[in-house]
Amino acid sequence: MTAAVALRQRVDGALPHRLRRSAAQTDEGHMIRTADLLGWLADRARAHRFTVDRIAFDELDGWSFAPGTGNLVHHTGRFFSVEGLSVTLGEGTVPSWEQPIIRQPENGILGILVKEFDGVLHFLLQAKMEPGNPNQLQLSPTVQATRSNYTGVHRGAEVPYLEHFTGPGRGRVHIDVLQSEHGSWFYRKSNRNMLVEATGEVVPRADFCWLTLGQIGELLRLDNVVNMDCRTVIACLPIAAGEPGALHSDAELQSWFTVERSRWDPTIECKPLAAVAGWERDAYCIRRPDGRYFRLVAVSVEASSREVSSWSQPLIEPTGTGVTAFLVRDIGGVPHLLVQAKAEAGLLDKVELAPTVQCNPANSAHLPAAERPPFLDLVLAAPPERIRYEARHSEEGGRFLNAESRYLLVDVTGDEVALQPPAGFQWATAGQLGGLAGHGHYLNVQARTLLSCLHAGAARLP
Amino acid sequence: MTAAVALRQRVDGALPHRLRRSAAQTDEGHMIRTADLLGWLADRARAHRFTVDRIAFDELDGWSFAPGTGNLVHHTGRFFSVEGLSVTLGEGTVPSWEQPIIRQPENGILGILVKEFDGVLHFLLQAKMEPGNPNQLQLSPTVQATRSNYTGVHRGAEVPYLEHFTGPGRGRVHIDVLQSEHGSWFYRKSNRNMLVEATGEVVPRADFCWLTLGQIGELLRLDNVVNMDCRTVIACLPIAAGEPGALHSDAELQSWFTVERSRWDPTIECKPLAAVAGWERDAYCIRRPDGRYFRLVAVSVEASSREVSSWSQPLIEPTGTGVTAFLVRDIGGVPHLLVQAKAEAGLLDKVELAPTVQCNPANSAHLPAAERPPFLDLVLAAPPERIRYEARHSEEGGRFLNAESRYLLVDVTGDEVALQPPAGFQWATAGQLGGLAGHGHYLNVQARTLLSCLHAGAARLP
Repeated sequence: MTAAVALRQRVDGALPHRLRRSAAQTDEGHMIRTADLLGWLADRARAHRFTVDRIAFDELDGWSFAPGTGNLVHHTGRFFSVEGLSVTLGEGTVPSWEQPIIRQPENGILGILVKEFDGVLHFLLQAKMEPGNPNQLQLSPTVQATRSNYTGVHRGAEVPYLEHFTGPGRGRVHIDVLQSEHGSWFYRKSNRNMLVEATGEVVPRADFCWLTLGQIGELLRLDNVVNMDCRTVIACLPIAAGEPGALHSDAELQSWFTVERSRWDPTIECKPLAAVAGWERDAYCIRRPDGRYFRLVAVSVEASSREVSSWSQPLIEPTGTGVTAFLVRDIGGVPHLLVQAKAEAGLLDKVELAPTVQCNPANSAHLPAAERPPFLDLVLAAPPERIRYEARHSEEGGRFLNAESRYLLVDVTGDEVALQPPAGFQWATAGQLGGLAGHGHYLNVQARTLLSCLHAGAARLP
Repeated sequence: MTAAVALRQRVDGALPHRLRRSAAQTDEGHMIRTADLLGWLADRARAHRFTVDRIAFDELDGWSFAPGTGNLVHHTGRFFSVEGLSVTLGEGTVPSWEQPIIRQPENGILGILVKEFDGVLHFLLQAKMEPGNPNQLQLSPTVQATRSNYTGVHRGAEVPYLEHFTGPGRGRVHIDVLQSEHGSWFYRKSNRNMLVEATGEVVPRADFCWLTLGQIGELLRLDNVVNMDCRTVIACLPIAAGEPGALHSDAELQSWFTVERSRWDPTIECKPLAAVAGWERDAYCIRRPDGRYFRLVAVSVEASSREVSSWSQPLIEPTGTGVTAFLVRDIGGVPHLLVQAKAEAGLLDKVELAPTVQCNPANSAHLPAAERPPFLDLVLAAPPERIRYEARHSEEGGRFLNAESRYLLVDVTGDEVALQPPAGFQWATAGQLGGLAGHGHYLNVQARTLLSCLHAGAARLP
């Protein structure tokens, strides 16, 4: 005799509704009023000593340039390393180049724990300091752990709440998908983006706070409060409401993307950091003589709230502030976003969908207008009434120093951008992008940040 | 004034129904009765001279071992090359090895054109000869073209019907997705799998035939009639009927897969073919001294029906016949297939979902039972009444010589395989696998062959 097996519904039809209900609750949550959140964050920042100092590479503890290759590595061989990359795209204003790049083959976990209070889903976020954050402390997922973190190489305290995401006793998994990170700075990096619903009681520890999705949305309107790891998980939420249609069917959109991905046949070769052409190293940084793109620097960190109390590490420091924007246009009564099929050297599968504009304007300021990124001037010149959303967000503060970008949604008209945009661009709805975010290899991390603002209600489409 | 824009439905809700109606029509199509198909194929085979002879490498025309690397390359630098790979998986019965591997970075098109006749969708297939096919002529997609084919490097005739798949006048695209090919023999190869519905008249040329999906299903019950390129496209059809549920929700299944993919951190390095350890080369082949896995050989081809009338090329010739099987089990009234998360050295993202058993038994015959592939003995010992489906199919005859495998679906009971299978295996429904086949990086090509048999009705689940 075999006991009857209870089947599960393949798709949790109630989840989108529950997420939208959480997004609609903006003023207060089970634990804190939205108006009090900045005070709570300031309090958390005061509770922890945290100083970050730039140091020379030879002052790094545990890190050194490997003999021969010159790669910047940790003595354990874990965490990450900085190596070299040679790239030949064959087209564009910079058809080939060499650069340092971070290699971190392990897939970490970016996991948010959710639980219902008073019938509304709340997200357990952590006030977490990272050395590269411009304001040090931001809200991060419940768990933000490299495999080194949770397999013990870090030699620090255990990762709180990790048991909800791994092992037999974990909660109900709503999302668990590998998503890429910055293709310009990471070599084929991806992390597990997870949303797990707790099945039992969860006691919020110090530095942790239960927030509704709407509260997170309110915070996403502010500069540098919700960190990248949090944003990318929220981008993966299956929250999309129905749309009456789209300019292109899902199949047509996927076909366009397939053509774009197939169009590129880049030559990407790893090489020793010491052999990278066009970059120079002094005691404190590795940079290009023209100062463009980014610098590799080293910092020391003194903190009390992190897994270990002090450490030093390399960071990538982009030069200048980025501009990352989707153009938004009404098409047939449905808002559409102009996506870009963007080749990035570090992406595993060459091309992912990016915002319309994703660049650092300083890097192209010396170029004639025709060679600057398409639509950049349109975004920079947008009058206030056209700017549907703007906030500054920074990228992962554990790897990037002051990597800030202006994230924008900018309204345009049919006279400015036609239904048939230039090659490499295409119109898609938020629902279409949300569907693709349920799988890896489609949306790059910058596109996911802007999508998270829509999911959490920080920005609304017309 | 802007003209009103007609939006499209994001998902074509009628397509699954139309595909199922085509699958249900098994006896005859618009153009030919199913009973007459083998006669038509034999007639096509007679119409074309086609001889394949094994030759020495130095008799290859246009191909040679490159000085220094020893890589086997075409003088144009196009088509493909045979290079070396060094693999360290770190676990399994063979934790590290070196091997020759085919590199072909371009994404070709595997495209089937469909059109309704008498209210039923028909698929335009081609009777096509490939040198590696054990029986030379099989049914292939309407278009089976490398980029070299259609950008003219081949210097042959134009590819018929290509205009339906590319360019502004193409038909209605139902499917266009990049799918992997054999990870043991190809280095990061993928092709566009396309299904396009013709918008106007289409005249079937000689060697082409309109078939219902049900007719293709009948042919899939036979050995070596429907080629791999055709099978993988059919696997991507959005045909799944609703299921009342599954042992695991889609999110849980994806999470299991994410864990499996993250678990592997293989070291894969390209190296010169001349430097590959453990293989030996003579005038006619490159092989291992123990004869296992495969040989690299060269053939000359004389044909009249292909784009060019004669050529020579290298082929990979696996040793022995493969066994590729899904175990099938009823769980809670719904049939489930036992999928394997299989690491293959040539896959772009390390791991894809494979059938329960995918191996060449000869390669493990020398091993103790505990080290042989899990479930292989169960498949080999299955009594006839347990074998739900069996046919021999061969892999891409343009690259592989006599690469035949027994493809099976084998019924098992709960006493034989539990709800919680061994690590690396999981139960999934056909509908779940069909959903994943709509995206790349999920199902390997062998799993797609078996899925195509279900989609076309060659095999039916209980």
